[in-house]
Amino acid sequence: METYTDIPEKLKLAVLERIKPTEPEREKLLTIQEELASKVKTAAERLGISDVLVRMVGSAARGTWLSGTHDIDVFISFPEETPREKLETMGMAIAREVAKHAEHAEDRHAEHPYLNIIYKGFDVDLVPCFRVASASRIKSAVDRTPFHNDFVKPRVKGLEDEVLLLKQFMRGGGVYGSELKTQGFSGYFTELLIIHYGSFENTVHAACSWKPGQKIDIMQHSEIEHDEPLVMVDPTDPRRNVAAALSLDKFCMFIDHCREFLKNPELRFFFPAAPLPLKDSEIREKLEARKSTQLAIVFKTPDVVEDVLYPQLYKMEQAAAALLKEYDFTVMKTGVWSGKSETAVLLELISGTLPNVKKHIGPPVWVKTHAEKFKEKYKGADGVFGGYIENGKYVFEIQRKYPTAKGLLEERLMTCSLGKSVCKSVSEGFEIIEDAGICRLKDTDFRVFLRGWM
Amino acid sequence: METYTDIPEKLKLAVLERIKPTEPEREKLLTIQEELASKVKTAAERLGISDVLVRMVGSAARGTWLSGTHDIDVFISFPEETPREKLETMGMAIAREVAKHAEHAEDRHAEHPYLNIIYKGFDVDLVPCFRVASASRIKSAVDRTPFHNDFVKPRVKGLEDEVLLLKQFMRGGGVYGSELKTQGFSGYFTELLIIHYGSFENTVHAACSWKPGQKIDIMQHSEIEHDEPLVMVDPTDPRRNVAAALSLDKFCMFIDHCREFLKNPELRFFFPAAPLPLKDSEIREKLEARKSTQLAIVFKTPDVVEDVLYPQLYKMEQAAAALLKEYDFTVMKTGVWSGKSETAVLLELISGTLPNVKKHIGPPVWVKTHAEKFKEKYKGADGVFGGYIENGKYVFEIQRKYPTAKGLLEERLMTCSLGKSVCKSVSEGFEIIEDAGICRLKDTDFRVFLRGWM
Repeated sequence: METYTDIPEKLKLAVLERIKPTEPEREKLLTIQEELASKVKTAAERLGISDVLVRMVGSAARGTWLSGTHDIDVFISFPEETPREKLETMGMAIAREVAKHAEHAEDRHAEHPYLNIIYKGFDVDLVPCFRVASASRIKSAVDRTPFHNDFVKPRVKGLEDEVLLLKQFMRGGGVYGSELKTQGFSGYFTELLIIHYGSFENTVHAACSWKPGQKIDIMQHSEIEHDEPLVMVDPTDPRRNVAAALSLDKFCMFIDHCREFLKNPELRFFFPAAPLPLKDSEIREKLEARKSTQLAIVFKTPDVVEDVLYPQLYKMEQAAAALLKEYDFTVMKTGVWSGKSETAVLLELISGTLPNVKKHIGPPVWVKTHAEKFKEKYKGADGVFGGYIENGKYVFEIQRKYPTAKGLLEERLMTCSLGKSVCKSVSEGFEIIEDAGICRLKDTDFRVFLRGWM
Repeated sequence: METYTDIPEKLKLAVLERIKPTEPEREKLLTIQEELASKVKTAAERLGISDVLVRMVGSAARGTWLSGTHDIDVFISFPEETPREKLETMGMAIAREVAKHAEHAEDRHAEHPYLNIIYKGFDVDLVPCFRVASASRIKSAVDRTPFHNDFVKPRVKGLEDEVLLLKQFMRGGGVYGSELKTQGFSGYFTELLIIHYGSFENTVHAACSWKPGQKIDIMQHSEIEHDEPLVMVDPTDPRRNVAAALSLDKFCMFIDHCREFLKNPELRFFFPAAPLPLKDSEIREKLEARKSTQLAIVFKTPDVVEDVLYPQLYKMEQAAAALLKEYDFTVMKTGVWSGKSETAVLLELISGTLPNVKKHIGPPVWVKTHAEKFKEKYKGADGVFGGYIENGKYVFEIQRKYPTAKGLLEERLMTCSLGKSVCKSVSEGFEIIEDAGICRLKDTDFRVFLRGWM
């Protein structure tokens, strides 16, 4: 902390100018929220459903939303004793009534179903939930949200700008978002950080010295141990880690982002230059410069939400790398990109080819039965180049089954343990493309991804 | 032992017919030995050196020499109290007198100097030694030899054919010879095996079940522990392992040779077909089939005896492999060949090239000082492709210093720890040849070596 410069007020103001909702924006949001609340009530009445309350939750309700985002969370709460099935049918019935006024509506599913609608340009989630007495009695994960609202709203009052700065700063560092694709920081998490450390600046200073095992427990009520890199005990639930979804690498990326920022507090840490897509000629130049082997497993993007898709892609990335390693290929790094129509798992290898000959080491000569069996199997067999004794063990030079990584993946990828949706898509067809072959993928977003990759 | 067939008498006779010295051969050897003995005595007298005895030792003296070999060991022994320097000058003076009758003479050096001469076609060593009272009081390694003679001669009487069979069998298996080049079994060792096991057949049967740690102690007088794979306690010296020079691999090769032989007791185990030298076209075919990278470090053969040369070559073989591994190359096997004019250290690699890009893993991000120093060093530095965080650690993709094995060896071979003679020769010039480049080496013996290699 010692040698870092302070964050200039001017810089913070410049950031806020770009991210803080304007007065008209604020008013519009309020109006829309009120409209939605009244529509929910009317719908409930029309459907003869009583004892229903409407709650606005999330950043929009707490005044910690970034200008330009148009997300509203409307929670439709039912008495605690309502049977789950009834809650779902009645909740969705009300939501569907409201959706009649929307530009677009879509059924979604978390722990239970909810409705996502586009209403006057806003992205609105209509979420049925239980009205429980305390966060420790929740029946579904969403039931917790109102408690978060209750905790944050009064405490973050006056600190909204600090939350906005931190959110945008995390966006700039690529660590904002707790979805399974990003595995970064959630909005609630940033609010708690500001409540705990008091300001954006304090948070950034503190994070520079974070280590895995860092624990923040605002209510001092932690009840269990967690083994995630960062533990933010939920003030509304002593058993829950708000940072459970944060990966080690996103945790480290944030620390790194904070350190770099404090060395040179500049606007670019909030608004990094958008990387340009890589052109074919650049791809070829980079391949020539690196002289490694680039492989991409390309298949049709499965038609599932990102929170379902990405864990399966990360699993596939690991499985493909493990398969390659099992057959002696050296994987330098792996990556995942998914676009609207196509998805690619990328693998960079030391080399995509190995010799035909493979050294197969057997048991020590003096372990008689094993050694003799081993020798019998390989001596003079088809595809065996030769044999000798090395360090007391029989060694045979045998024919390598998969001398190319491409061939190996083509033949054995389907034997890997793959997630359901990915497995389905891959089994319908996939392609292994190598080196300059990736120029085939023209998607701009993919080309932007490639600039970070190569 | 159970399922092996007996060794047919006919086979043994057929072998003996080819290796057992004929009566005229025997007589000639005796005559030559007598001539040499008398010449030593005459020389001593002429030089006025008294108290000198002549002893015929080695296989020629024990009747365990193979037909066709023409080695005679003549030991010129001096009283125990003779000063070492005097023994050397007087001993060599006598030897040089004898050498006046020889076709060729050459000074050699073991623990002390001796003379090697060619006399009437026989290869004769004239070795000065001390006449000590017991093998435990020897002043030089050669002083032991007369004691070996004394032990073996009476006990091997009647078993000479068994020794001859075992020696030839070991020759056929490539494990005969205790020089530092071969690291196999010495003649004395084979005699002790026959004395211990009673016959060639028993020895072969027993060896099939040998394990490292096998110990034979004929006199039951072992005084110390040894960690070599096979321990044959010297009957004339309780602290000495006769098999100290035997390498683990030669030990195993012998076990393997015995097992294979007992499965099919055939003449070829004594007289294997001489392998044909590999032709250029065959080299190319094999390279194409294996698709690995062959490297040969070629230099002028140092002008030293094999017992000096080979340990240095084996050391160089290890050092070159270690250097390659240090720089990420994967060495599949190594080998050494040395001819009259040129010497080659051979290395087979998975690949002789690596990508330009190399993954350089740094400290965890949270180990602040180290991590920041590491990042500062590599971020944006020349030849750095990019950086990222993986498993909590900074990773930079840096320019590999040596992307080819050939370039690495050319530039850094001389930094390896090399033996004196090899170092001198290599520093005068060496060449790294790759793959089909080895066709440049035409030496027939090298081409025979290559057949075993590829």
